[in-house]
Amino acid sequence: MPGSSSTRVARGGIDLGGTKIEAVVVDGRNTVIGSARRPTPTEGGPPAVAAELVAALARAAGAAGLETSQLAGAGVGSPGIVDSAAGTVASAGNLPGWEGSFALGPALASELGTAVIIGNDVTVATEAEFKLGSGRPYRSLLGVFWGTGVGGGLILGGKAWLGRGAAGEIGHTVVKIGGARCPCGRSGCLEAYAGRGSMEARARRQADQGRRTDLFKLMKERKRTRLTSGVWAKAIEREDKLAIEIVDTALDALGAGVASAINLLDIEAVVIGGGLGVRFGQPYADRIAARMQPHLFIDERPPAVHVAGLGDLGGAIGAALLARRAVG
Amino acid sequence: MPGSSSTRVARGGIDLGGTKIEAVVVDGRNTVIGSARRPTPTEGGPPAVAAELVAALARAAGAAGLETSQLAGAGVGSPGIVDSAAGTVASAGNLPGWEGSFALGPALASELGTAVIIGNDVTVATEAEFKLGSGRPYRSLLGVFWGTGVGGGLILGGKAWLGRGAAGEIGHTVVKIGGARCPCGRSGCLEAYAGRGSMEARARRQADQGRRTDLFKLMKERKRTRLTSGVWAKAIEREDKLAIEIVDTALDALGAGVASAINLLDIEAVVIGGGLGVRFGQPYADRIAARMQPHLFIDERPPAVHVAGLGDLGGAIGAALLARRAVG
Repeated sequence: MPGSSSTRVARGGIDLGGTKIEAVVVDGRNTVIGSARRPTPTEGGPPAVAAELVAALARAAGAAGLETSQLAGAGVGSPGIVDSAAGTVASAGNLPGWEGSFALGPALASELGTAVIIGNDVTVATEAEFKLGSGRPYRSLLGVFWGTGVGGGLILGGKAWLGRGAAGEIGHTVVKIGGARCPCGRSGCLEAYAGRGSMEARARRQADQGRRTDLFKLMKERKRTRLTSGVWAKAIEREDKLAIEIVDTALDALGAGVASAINLLDIEAVVIGGGLGVRFGQPYADRIAARMQPHLFIDERPPAVHVAGLGDLGGAIGAALLARRAVG
Repeated sequence: MPGSSSTRVARGGIDLGGTKIEAVVVDGRNTVIGSARRPTPTEGGPPAVAAELVAALARAAGAAGLETSQLAGAGVGSPGIVDSAAGTVASAGNLPGWEGSFALGPALASELGTAVIIGNDVTVATEAEFKLGSGRPYRSLLGVFWGTGVGGGLILGGKAWLGRGAAGEIGHTVVKIGGARCPCGRSGCLEAYAGRGSMEARARRQADQGRRTDLFKLMKERKRTRLTSGVWAKAIEREDKLAIEIVDTALDALGAGVASAINLLDIEAVVIGGGLGVRFGQPYADRIAARMQPHLFIDERPPAVHVAGLGDLGGAIGAALLARRAVG
């Protein structure tokens, strides 16, 4: 029965972001056969988020003509501190009301009717780019997820490098001693200059001080409550001076921080993902490469710098890969 | 014949530094049974340096009651670009007249009468700390060599991580975008604040501008032509304000740069070696740890920070370990 066989190999993947939830269903060759996107709930804490994750995957499965209980398994890429064995997520600071620990895996498994495995969001997205995306030609790479924050994942010698479990925090590379305050509370971090959150705070301060910008007008036109990646892209297209200036500072910080990582690790490639990274695309990956160049210790053989090949779906596809590992 | 047996297991190791050459002879258990130190020649280029390396190892062997031809092999830890297969060293910028490539391995082998293998100086020193020094309890560590420059070596999951061959350049982590000029020609590097060379240049500029300091008086008293680690230590002991200020800036830069590496790699330990690192000892390793703390993303479990357990001899002992691999 071919139908029954295909149901057994299909897997689900969910990327739980601070702004949105992306869900996919993939077949045995990791081709996306269904997808869905929903906003991340801003109220109700972990149970509300869990309910939206279930709804998102159910919709993606529906698009593939399946029930979630027909999936061979589902993976979730989550922010915060993930304990894969217990299926818990703790201290997911970007998700409102998620300071403590919540048993997300068990909660989802009972609702979805399939096995669920939780992994770290940037780690699974990096693995997806390594196995299926822009990172395929390389054995070692750094994934940089340029979005609300700046996250990172490492593949070293063909395997994810996790250190003691929390490796990859390139967003908290100190690019300027005594520099700008970061959302993490520290100062001078890359994310304090390049995170979408920090960029928005800077724009707001400047606008409040009377600096002229269309950023907030564009935000309202698009019925947004935040300066989304799309708003930034539009403002730059319109040559908004403040937007250009803030993005320029972000590129400088990314260039310095990523070059420092290359000087330390001497790896082959950098893959730029995340909301801003994917929206801005390869032209901005090239600009980051150009800003890295003056800081590279071995400047005659810079690493390749690619935009994420899987685009916005990398996190969800990576989560589906995680499920493959879980179900064997 | 026990005598003959011991001659076959003894190995030589030479650390080729910008200021001095350290040579050791070790027995089969890697215990140092002879050592010698000589200044690095400032004239005559690679052939003059090679002659001094031979003389240093001959003296170390003599102290162990051996001829160099009785050694099972000898290793050299060298700066510059090392090709271990060919035994060549190129672009050793800290060594006068060593811009091109020189076949150091073959030149030494014929003079010493034993097999010679060349490795990268900081890599062999890091491996020595990992296998025999302060790094023994750990599977992953960063070696930071705080001397004329700031070098680094990585052990990840029990093995040296070399990347594409040049990993470990923590000295060229950008700690301040738009910051001080580094001897490497770039700006804002850790080494521009913490390298002994940069620290001396800063002290000289300040003294030339009339700033009061005993640094250069101490240098002359000790019959030195540079501000050696000993001069810096003495000046700090005497509470020389300029010396304290410059070392303070160096510690800030080391704290930020090393913390950034930990945020990226989440490894267990940091070992601080190099001329200044060894001279200043564990109290300064502790100060570096304290300066790292405000920048650590996971600050509740900082890495261990130790001074190099093998002291000044780590590089030479590491080179001798390299010889074991070559002849083993």
